[in-house]
Amino acid sequence: MILHGYFRSSASWRVRIALALKGVDATSRVHHLRRGEQRNADYLALNPQGLLPALEIDDGRVLTQSLAIIAYLDELYPQPPLLPARPFDRAFVRSIALAIACDIHPVQNLRVLGRVTELADAAAATEWARAVIVDGLDACEVLLTRVDGPFCLGDTPTVADICLVPQLANARRFGADGDWPRLFAAEAACLALPAFADTRPERQPDAE
Amino acid sequence: MILHGYFRSSASWRVRIALALKGVDATSRVHHLRRGEQRNADYLALNPQGLLPALEIDDGRVLTQSLAIIAYLDELYPQPPLLPARPFDRAFVRSIALAIACDIHPVQNLRVLGRVTELADAAAATEWARAVIVDGLDACEVLLTRVDGPFCLGDTPTVADICLVPQLANARRFGADGDWPRLFAAEAACLALPAFADTRPERQPDAE
Repeated sequence: MILHGYFRSSASWRVRIALALKGVDATSRVHHLRRGEQRNADYLALNPQGLLPALEIDDGRVLTQSLAIIAYLDELYPQPPLLPARPFDRAFVRSIALAIACDIHPVQNLRVLGRVTELADAAAATEWARAVIVDGLDACEVLLTRVDGPFCLGDTPTVADICLVPQLANARRFGADGDWPRLFAAEAACLALPAFADTRPERQPDAE
Repeated sequence: MILHGYFRSSASWRVRIALALKGVDATSRVHHLRRGEQRNADYLALNPQGLLPALEIDDGRVLTQSLAIIAYLDELYPQPPLLPARPFDRAFVRSIALAIACDIHPVQNLRVLGRVTELADAAAATEWARAVIVDGLDACEVLLTRVDGPFCLGDTPTVADICLVPQLANARRFGADGDWPRLFAAEAACLALPAFADTRPERQPDAE
């Protein structure tokens, strides 16, 4: 398998964590986001969205969207499971992952912030990113206090944690902070695991 | 079960379609988006994101995020399945749903367009919505030509169709159009089914 990603792409980091938790190897192919390499014709032929990550599987077919890739890996390599067993718990964990993957991350990604900069200026774009992240993580904090930790739900990492940890890294990068003790506790539990710590952006070969 | 929604919320429409496909009844509770009722304290106590929909299940617990709710319904009521059987196909269908639910819809929702209007003006917000929708649906068109229809994948509707049909309705509302024969064919196959046709926004009791 080939994982098309970029060290600082938080959606790519999600897939790196899932691969590491499963103990599955994938060849890494880097596309430099700030240089716009994800909009090159050869990458668009793989993923017409021009977004990272994408997973090329061994028969040459391509999967896009980090959460679809992670669900695929979880079905092919069931151990350790990235979702809890009970239907409500599974839905709860998915709802946290989606609260981040739908309502925070895509509204503060490079493409959107570029549009905001064009409409206003770079300061407005940073302010936009902070507001989106703070709103979204404030809601996640309230949702997570409904269930026990130390991870987002219970004592093993799930797809919710896989989304949370890269989003908190983004929060720091934009100077977005809040009163999030439950989120930080889950993050600390995750970063004690090599699958989260070793896949951090700053530990990737393409890190600058 | 109580479905908290709004006739024109396309994420609420997704859940209405899933309930109808499954033949499952839920009581409808309406929160008027344009009047901001989803930000009232009583609704925020259910869903701190202040977004629609939410599903209150019979023990009073609450699920948020339309795709998490739909996956929950699909696990509790397996017939008809909303995902194909094979792992790659399941991932492909999920990737289309997520391309819409992450990278189109939340970047053109009411909250984001309100922020754009504040930064620039209403015309810029409409232009923003059109650009986001056209970019995203152009990519979906390319992705869907990789597989056979008439639905997004094969001859039964999946979660990809459940996301596509409301997004195409949004596209028309914003005057966003493109060369999308594959998308329109899938939409036509869907709207021939009562689960899609009868749950349309304009057929809801709260439609204005």
